[in-house]
Amino acid sequence: MQSKAMALKNKVQSIVVTTMWRKNAFLVSSSRTFATGYDDNRILKSPSSLVSLDFPDVWNYSSSTNCTESSTHKLASDHTARVIDGKQVSEEIISNVATEVTRMKKTIGEVPGLGVILVGERKDSLTYVRNKITACEEAGIKFKLAEFSDNCTEDEVCDAIMRFNADPSFHGILVQLPLPQHLNEEKILNVVKLEKDVDGFHPVNMGNLAMRGREPLFVPCTPKGCVELLIRYGVEIMGKKAVVIGRSNIVGLPASLLLQRHHATVTIVTALTPNPEEITRDADILISGVGVPNMVRGSWVKPGAVVVDVGTYPIEDKSCEQGYRLIGDVCYEEASRVASLITPVPGGVGPMTVAMLLYNTLESATRKYNFV
Amino acid sequence: MQSKAMALKNKVQSIVVTTMWRKNAFLVSSSRTFATGYDDNRILKSPSSLVSLDFPDVWNYSSSTNCTESSTHKLASDHTARVIDGKQVSEEIISNVATEVTRMKKTIGEVPGLGVILVGERKDSLTYVRNKITACEEAGIKFKLAEFSDNCTEDEVCDAIMRFNADPSFHGILVQLPLPQHLNEEKILNVVKLEKDVDGFHPVNMGNLAMRGREPLFVPCTPKGCVELLIRYGVEIMGKKAVVIGRSNIVGLPASLLLQRHHATVTIVTALTPNPEEITRDADILISGVGVPNMVRGSWVKPGAVVVDVGTYPIEDKSCEQGYRLIGDVCYEEASRVASLITPVPGGVGPMTVAMLLYNTLESATRKYNFV
Repeated sequence: MQSKAMALKNKVQSIVVTTMWRKNAFLVSSSRTFATGYDDNRILKSPSSLVSLDFPDVWNYSSSTNCTESSTHKLASDHTARVIDGKQVSEEIISNVATEVTRMKKTIGEVPGLGVILVGERKDSLTYVRNKITACEEAGIKFKLAEFSDNCTEDEVCDAIMRFNADPSFHGILVQLPLPQHLNEEKILNVVKLEKDVDGFHPVNMGNLAMRGREPLFVPCTPKGCVELLIRYGVEIMGKKAVVIGRSNIVGLPASLLLQRHHATVTIVTALTPNPEEITRDADILISGVGVPNMVRGSWVKPGAVVVDVGTYPIEDKSCEQGYRLIGDVCYEEASRVASLITPVPGGVGPMTVAMLLYNTLESATRKYNFV
Repeated sequence: MQSKAMALKNKVQSIVVTTMWRKNAFLVSSSRTFATGYDDNRILKSPSSLVSLDFPDVWNYSSSTNCTESSTHKLASDHTARVIDGKQVSEEIISNVATEVTRMKKTIGEVPGLGVILVGERKDSLTYVRNKITACEEAGIKFKLAEFSDNCTEDEVCDAIMRFNADPSFHGILVQLPLPQHLNEEKILNVVKLEKDVDGFHPVNMGNLAMRGREPLFVPCTPKGCVELLIRYGVEIMGKKAVVIGRSNIVGLPASLLLQRHHATVTIVTALTPNPEEITRDADILISGVGVPNMVRGSWVKPGAVVVDVGTYPIEDKSCEQGYRLIGDVCYEEASRVASLITPVPGGVGPMTVAMLLYNTLESATRKYNFV
């Protein structure tokens, strides 16, 4: 596994930054100002394209469907973390959204509307969209699904978004990610009208989330759900050490920005972080959104920490009714014996994402109609 | 000093998040899902306005004009860090920009143009603008200054920006910050055309700097200058622990985002971080942009670390020709005996900011004319 990480690193070094990265960090070889070895005539030595630095995070851990207790880590046998019940919290939020929707309908004769774009037939995407439809029905939010085949064109998708943009009965637009490879995600997401970007993925919303003194119109649903859970369970964020594992646009990045807004001291761990467990072990609040089942072991968790697990993966299990069960990034059996609070998978962050989507859609309609 | 921090914290707690923050973190009092004490009917318990969380960072350290060696910290008496010569690097960059500008003029008969908005008569702003004018003249970049009195209106400033937006001979527009209190910085900066935002402060540019797979049109000059120095001095960033002290929109935030782009493991230390020195002491790369002279002591620095000091403050010193000298965030005398590389003040990051501004302006013109 080590060799895989090294290979990736070497590949990156050779492709992207051949002339720039030096093997011996902090070791400067000569008395000249500039390191030698630049063979190009560019004015700056830093990479001209930042996207070129943007290769996928490949975690140096094999995913595992089972985690057994690490023998090197002493677990308190009598301790079990309190479980953060995301399902219960999300039900309460959806029920409160429903009450507001009813009041809006009675008062001004309008209801919030959500338009969803679904491309292709990925099973997980279908499940997520189905959950969103059910929740919208429960809350009285108007829902419309625009479905496209796997081989549709960018224009078809953009046209559908523009129709939702133009239709005043839709206050939120969601493009179910990931999109098929041949579609330009950036281009498509940028078509979503800022005022209807209930997922908060537009760069203006992300920039305003990042910048001090600014306020995004919408905060991405998953991180917003995580922080709502923390607050509801009485977790102090201000001044605490928070570690976010992973830096995806939909989880890690906005989670790190939102935790900074709440005045945590935030560290972002990536696939290129050597010995991530040394950093996570120092976290009061640990949020994981990496995509590797059971990567975060009990030994990665500081005793008494709060653990929020954003990962969700179906694994085959014939003992379950549906033939599969869901597991997360965190080895729950181990981590729950070290943490003070922990989100389960399923029933933790997942339902909160849906509840936040409904909330953001309601908020958008409320803002549009100036409904108080 | 401790009481000041506590007072601030208490103030924040009482004003902003009275019902949300709990005194005993990680201690949940009852078996109910929700912490008690919420007296409002909002659907979410997290703050409805994120800006309300956005109070100024007040550092729990008094600024000092002199720093003496900390007696509790053992300094290697025979070690001195290599000095990062930002002045020399910036001169090389400006000279290379000048060459490109000459080539552009010869080839297509155009030169890059920079429009600068200056409001009021702050001495530091005047100095910065003067430095920029001098550098532009040196590089052959057209420069126009739009000056306004301290009591000008928002519309006057916005009109000037719009004239620069519309004028094809200007490829960059810079609003010298800070603006007087009565002007809305966000509104004014948002008027700057994205394609001319050479400071990179537009939320779209910041959002695209933050997001994976995206690329901002411009990276803010100061952090870009810091990273350029690191690369030129052979500092490996990938996989290293980088700590950024401060989270301003112009330094801390974009520096943390840019270091993440270069695959550092980044921690952002704020004024509310308890014992920041425990975190900075673990940094391979330490960037400080806080605004407190000599706050970062030698004992805050890991032996062998690279220290980049973004602060610049004039302090009275009659022994100097001008009657004052400049110092930074970092206690240089102490830190230079611990670090492996260090930027001085003056002559470190400061001149690089100007060089990057010229580079961004050239890049903007190059992009517009598709000049290769």
